[in-house]
Amino acid sequence: MIKKVLVANRGEIAVRIIRAAKELGVETVAIYSEADREALHIQLADEAYCVGPAATKDSYLNMSNIISVAVLTNCDAVHPGYGFLAENADFAELCEDCNITFIGPSAAAISQMGTKDVARETMRKAGVPIVPGSQGIVADVEDGKKIAKKIGYPVIIKATAGGGGKGIRVAENEEKLISGIQTTQQEAEAAFGDPGVYLEKYIQDFRHVEIQVLADNHGNVIHLGERDCSIQRRLQKLIEESPSPAIDEKTRQKMGKAAVKAAKAVNYSGAGTIEFIFDHHENNFYFMEMNTRIQVEHPVTELVTGIDLVKQQFLVASGEELKIKQSDVKLTGWALECRINAENPEKNFMPAPGEIKFYLPPGGLGVRIDSAAYPNYKIPPYYDSMIAKVICYAETREEVVQKMKRALSEFAIDGIPSTIPFHLRVLDNDVFLSGDFNTKFLEQNDVMNLSKEG
Amino acid sequence: MIKKVLVANRGEIAVRIIRAAKELGVETVAIYSEADREALHIQLADEAYCVGPAATKDSYLNMSNIISVAVLTNCDAVHPGYGFLAENADFAELCEDCNITFIGPSAAAISQMGTKDVARETMRKAGVPIVPGSQGIVADVEDGKKIAKKIGYPVIIKATAGGGGKGIRVAENEEKLISGIQTTQQEAEAAFGDPGVYLEKYIQDFRHVEIQVLADNHGNVIHLGERDCSIQRRLQKLIEESPSPAIDEKTRQKMGKAAVKAAKAVNYSGAGTIEFIFDHHENNFYFMEMNTRIQVEHPVTELVTGIDLVKQQFLVASGEELKIKQSDVKLTGWALECRINAENPEKNFMPAPGEIKFYLPPGGLGVRIDSAAYPNYKIPPYYDSMIAKVICYAETREEVVQKMKRALSEFAIDGIPSTIPFHLRVLDNDVFLSGDFNTKFLEQNDVMNLSKEG
Repeated sequence: MIKKVLVANRGEIAVRIIRAAKELGVETVAIYSEADREALHIQLADEAYCVGPAATKDSYLNMSNIISVAVLTNCDAVHPGYGFLAENADFAELCEDCNITFIGPSAAAISQMGTKDVARETMRKAGVPIVPGSQGIVADVEDGKKIAKKIGYPVIIKATAGGGGKGIRVAENEEKLISGIQTTQQEAEAAFGDPGVYLEKYIQDFRHVEIQVLADNHGNVIHLGERDCSIQRRLQKLIEESPSPAIDEKTRQKMGKAAVKAAKAVNYSGAGTIEFIFDHHENNFYFMEMNTRIQVEHPVTELVTGIDLVKQQFLVASGEELKIKQSDVKLTGWALECRINAENPEKNFMPAPGEIKFYLPPGGLGVRIDSAAYPNYKIPPYYDSMIAKVICYAETREEVVQKMKRALSEFAIDGIPSTIPFHLRVLDNDVFLSGDFNTKFLEQNDVMNLSKEG
Repeated sequence: MIKKVLVANRGEIAVRIIRAAKELGVETVAIYSEADREALHIQLADEAYCVGPAATKDSYLNMSNIISVAVLTNCDAVHPGYGFLAENADFAELCEDCNITFIGPSAAAISQMGTKDVARETMRKAGVPIVPGSQGIVADVEDGKKIAKKIGYPVIIKATAGGGGKGIRVAENEEKLISGIQTTQQEAEAAFGDPGVYLEKYIQDFRHVEIQVLADNHGNVIHLGERDCSIQRRLQKLIEESPSPAIDEKTRQKMGKAAVKAAKAVNYSGAGTIEFIFDHHENNFYFMEMNTRIQVEHPVTELVTGIDLVKQQFLVASGEELKIKQSDVKLTGWALECRINAENPEKNFMPAPGEIKFYLPPGGLGVRIDSAAYPNYKIPPYYDSMIAKVICYAETREEVVQKMKRALSEFAIDGIPSTIPFHLRVLDNDVFLSGDFNTKFLEQNDVMNLSKEG
């Protein structure tokens, strides 16, 4: 079993990992930037070391400093959390070279899933449904025209090295395709040093449904059902739930099997997520991408399955065989997560870091708080603006929505604006309540204009 | 369905009830004493009214003021919580007279269970095992001697009107019995205006195991398994768990059936608890008493059964039929509750009210906080000294103990002493960990001397 872990992250996920480690009897080492001297994860860890200035590239992305701390403190493992170095194959390899267990999949699996056209091809070969499109990179504009004609417009042009909404463009017709391919190639060359682009059919009306998988180093892979993350703003997930109101048991098993195939195709190890485009009209799904790490929204799966995903990461990374069999996994009840951010929903969700003057999270039955905030904590402006994840659990979707409304309405955060009023509006929206919505929910529903409230 | 409820209580249980009401869409009216103007339950309720000065007899026990508020605010129900008026038959009757639903059993059931010798006789007739002893009140010393000889020494002499550790005395032999009966009668006459005493065999080595029951007004009664509350200090429960490490499935069903019989014998309605003396050597159990109200430790049952007891109280009081059948009830996992009090464990648990300077409750998977505390809250000296209940849930007893240790170790309460260090010592104690202990655990184990720590 892993004896001592360096947690290469900050904020709520660092706290989450430290909690799991403590419960398993694993010693913990925290790292922090100069801007994070007052962070909660430092208080909770057994040891803590500063690894650099505020800028992430100098601290939380500073591989050599982080590895040095791990080596000097005799850590036998590193947990990367999400973001920062979590999907950095070089970092995973560096850990391996230093004889430190990287709590996550192999560097090879990270690479394979991190390069978009490679991932797409790997999935195609493994028999995982992919969106119709080019087979690998588009050779030239003529090749692109041929493929687009075959799959039909609109199509989406994606840079293979792209990510985070960059190097991506929609073409409704051939004219736009021609200019689009050229522009995207140029942009990708400039931004990522790789001009490769590929084509996919552009599916506009879909739900974001993802499958949690868990794999050990002995060839066992299971799936833990789905999460529905369709409530997004500019590809940023805001509300997640499990199960999905759009998925029946048959589809769940089909998607689950596809996800297990996907994980097996890259010899996956640990906790991972296969994101799917779910066409809720046709009940079809297509591989979108794989996140080769723990995700922000993992708690909803924990609440409906009763499985502690972060503990499982530790166990699998320690070499243990999975004790949970696919037939043991059952989704019971309904879980809902709202990400509460220090953003001003009335000012287009502008980040609003600053000091939390008064802080009292909600409590009681079925309310889970994952947070690194505390009274008088100053949220630094350098990192993400998350204050807390509120995760509720109840027997039915209706009940869990009521519980979330109750929890959010008693959540006291003074001193800075938060997205709580926005969440309360969504929870009162009839379309949201019906369960029948897609990823364009925010554009199509009047939930942003908070001044209309009351 | 009940539309508006007056919560006739304060502290964490008032907060707990308001939360359940909100989730059910029931409007809430809080009451408070002059000493409680800054209490959290006032903030969470829709309306709040002061009912009198700090002294409980003038405020939280002030029936006429409380009923006046309920009538004037058009409440159709009153929830009494625990303590204060929760087991006051007169108050239940007063509510009834005012056409206000008392969320609890009938005044008759409260009376029947509140008078100790009547309860004992009712149970005997219903076939619920009782401790061997006198049938009703002891006529005189001679009668007492005869009974004691039959059941064997030591015996316990109890005033029928007694309670809270008063009017109770152990006699190891005939000599002590004679003086004991006389003294207890005199004391009881003086304290309760009723000299009646009865005798029971004194069982010294037992566990406190209780069964949660739930009954509707249509004749349905179910039980929700047991809670083990053997970790006590002077009859004050400190740590509770469900299931009990000492109860097997067969005994659980046997006790459960006895508890259902007990509830049926008094036409019980709502949530109630039958407390048993559990002789863990002989696997025998005896009726101790029934608490005709929600209990402090109810959350452990909620976590292992998935049933919200306070919501069920509202539903039953609204006249609904129980939707849960006995066969639906299954205990899954393990739940543990620690009562964190503002007491100084190093000074014989002396209450230490005052201002909480910094307050941050623990969070994360499997941690539930029921509390009315907040940063800079001043705990008034007039009421109980509870700061929070920390309730943890995990798959096994071993895991839940680890989780509780993790949770308590991160619970930040500054400014006043708390019983957290004491709880951490119990959680590290081998006898506690073995699960094999009785109600004398605290006397027999060195967990009080905190200065030995570290």
